[in-house]
Amino acid sequence: MHEGNRTEISTLGEFGLIKHLTEGIKLQNTESKYGVGDDAAVLEFKDQQVLVTTDLLMEGVHFDLVYTPLKHLGYKAAMVNFSDIYAMNGTPKQITLSVAISKRFCIEDLDDFYEGVKLACDLHHVDLIGGDTTASVTGLAISITCIGAADKKQVVYRNGAKETDLICVSGDLGAAYMGLQLMEREKAVFQGEKDVQPDFAGKEYLLERFLKPEARKDIIESLAKAGIKPTSMMDISDGLSSELMHICSQSKVGCRVYEERIPIDYQTAVMAEEFNMNLSTCALNGGEDYELLFTVPLTQHEEISKIKDIKIIGHITKAELGCALVTRDGNEMELKAQGWNHMEK
Amino acid sequence: MHEGNRTEISTLGEFGLIKHLTEGIKLQNTESKYGVGDDAAVLEFKDQQVLVTTDLLMEGVHFDLVYTPLKHLGYKAAMVNFSDIYAMNGTPKQITLSVAISKRFCIEDLDDFYEGVKLACDLHHVDLIGGDTTASVTGLAISITCIGAADKKQVVYRNGAKETDLICVSGDLGAAYMGLQLMEREKAVFQGEKDVQPDFAGKEYLLERFLKPEARKDIIESLAKAGIKPTSMMDISDGLSSELMHICSQSKVGCRVYEERIPIDYQTAVMAEEFNMNLSTCALNGGEDYELLFTVPLTQHEEISKIKDIKIIGHITKAELGCALVTRDGNEMELKAQGWNHMEK
Repeated sequence: MHEGNRTEISTLGEFGLIKHLTEGIKLQNTESKYGVGDDAAVLEFKDQQVLVTTDLLMEGVHFDLVYTPLKHLGYKAAMVNFSDIYAMNGTPKQITLSVAISKRFCIEDLDDFYEGVKLACDLHHVDLIGGDTTASVTGLAISITCIGAADKKQVVYRNGAKETDLICVSGDLGAAYMGLQLMEREKAVFQGEKDVQPDFAGKEYLLERFLKPEARKDIIESLAKAGIKPTSMMDISDGLSSELMHICSQSKVGCRVYEERIPIDYQTAVMAEEFNMNLSTCALNGGEDYELLFTVPLTQHEEISKIKDIKIIGHITKAELGCALVTRDGNEMELKAQGWNHMEK
Repeated sequence: MHEGNRTEISTLGEFGLIKHLTEGIKLQNTESKYGVGDDAAVLEFKDQQVLVTTDLLMEGVHFDLVYTPLKHLGYKAAMVNFSDIYAMNGTPKQITLSVAISKRFCIEDLDDFYEGVKLACDLHHVDLIGGDTTASVTGLAISITCIGAADKKQVVYRNGAKETDLICVSGDLGAAYMGLQLMEREKAVFQGEKDVQPDFAGKEYLLERFLKPEARKDIIESLAKAGIKPTSMMDISDGLSSELMHICSQSKVGCRVYEERIPIDYQTAVMAEEFNMNLSTCALNGGEDYELLFTVPLTQHEEISKIKDIKIIGHITKAELGCALVTRDGNEMELKAQGWNHMEK
């Protein structure tokens, strides 16, 4: 929250506020014909399929403003929607953004939030085409809808994984979850003591993974360049274990994933030890990494192995074999979709 | 809120809940290729432009559950988004629906809400293609994005009104606002006294206009049948006065609207008298009627006059003449965009 100058939102009024926030927006994509300012935005896609994904983020459930700067929150809110479009093997093109805010927030807060959204949009060449700014009697609510495009034959669903396919993930897992744990710990320790700053030295990667995730456009581009179309794909928002089970249940297959092959960063491992947590459990069930999980035919083993930052972690089996993790000592443990169940809060 | 059997949402879990709510949904439109169940929905539009509109509705700001049944709320939330698509001269095709709910709500409440949404969708042949159900630490939040289609040459913006154009509205105005006033009054009178039911006899129309607005698909169809493409159009959500000023400012024109021509229902008039309110002020500034406001060339006077339930209320002037209401006694009063400024709450 802004601590310097505070300009109350009421000074601008509803229409003034929308004007202030959307001023200077220029549409970059040829598919965006008309943006903010009418009853609806107008888009035009030529011979492409249109992808639509949406997210509703609530303060106190999906984010905690005690340790999430508004600019980061805006960036992340946009990024996780782009990630859903990449997970369909598409390209994000437009977003609409609606924000509900209470009187706690000032215009400078909203400016910070929008700055983060716009930065994410600029990086991914996405147009902000509409939305809404309204009041809330309590906390902050954010709703983003992202629209993307893909050639009809290139769209990848969750339901196409086939027996013997290789299971791949990008990047590394569990770091965002560790970043969250770290934030929660520091919040508990330091809450109320104003002049004490937590020391995050050596743990920057974990914080960045949690506060500023990056949608893996680069992976989609690498796959396209290598001529690989995954048989199934999704992004990892709830945790590897949970997402794998979605792919398997929708594809009507089973899987074997090898514990030793799950990519984990060094800082994640150090932190898990510090917290006395099981590292594999963190990597399997920690969410919000926004890496891509996908399957490719076994015949493309060589091509996929050459791509930087992609790791083969297992393979698809017949459905009857179920979904299991093969541990370091060679045992099989049934996968469970623990994920992050926001509904339990 | 549900008062009979209550099934706690936690009994289903997040994925179980989404499955429960979206079960049995069948996609009706050929443009809807894939709905709920993947990272994004997949749509395909042939040679048509794509329209996108979105709304974020917050409990305590946009609706009051004391007098709004959840089924009506769902119906209205969908309907007002369809209205935005019709206001572009398009056809609504899909919606995504996200809902954030606190523990106050049970599955039966959500069922009621979804029933209302689905009823509105059925009536307008709209597919529910995605969304999200999540927790809220406080009230109910609803986010709907509606996607529509229109032939490129048929899209109508707010900025096309020309001097001498006729200004038209559908239906009648001010009734929804009176319905709200009525609800607020009864709420104040009866709050706390359980067995007393307010008497709304003779005022059903006002309540219906407020609780169950209908998007004017029929007007769009009548205009198309008569070969009339409006030069500008929008729907009346904030009030006639405010919307007229949007059209005039975006079209860079002025307008004259005749007080005596503003369509007002008998019940609205009776109620305004009962509340000791100025009737024209109610009709000009009362929002949520979701009627269509549009302009047509003067040359189409005859055609437009023949269409049922459309009234010509004035004409477009040069910008220098400003926006004014011509009162019954022939005076001119400058129009003001009072509207419903949700930001002031």
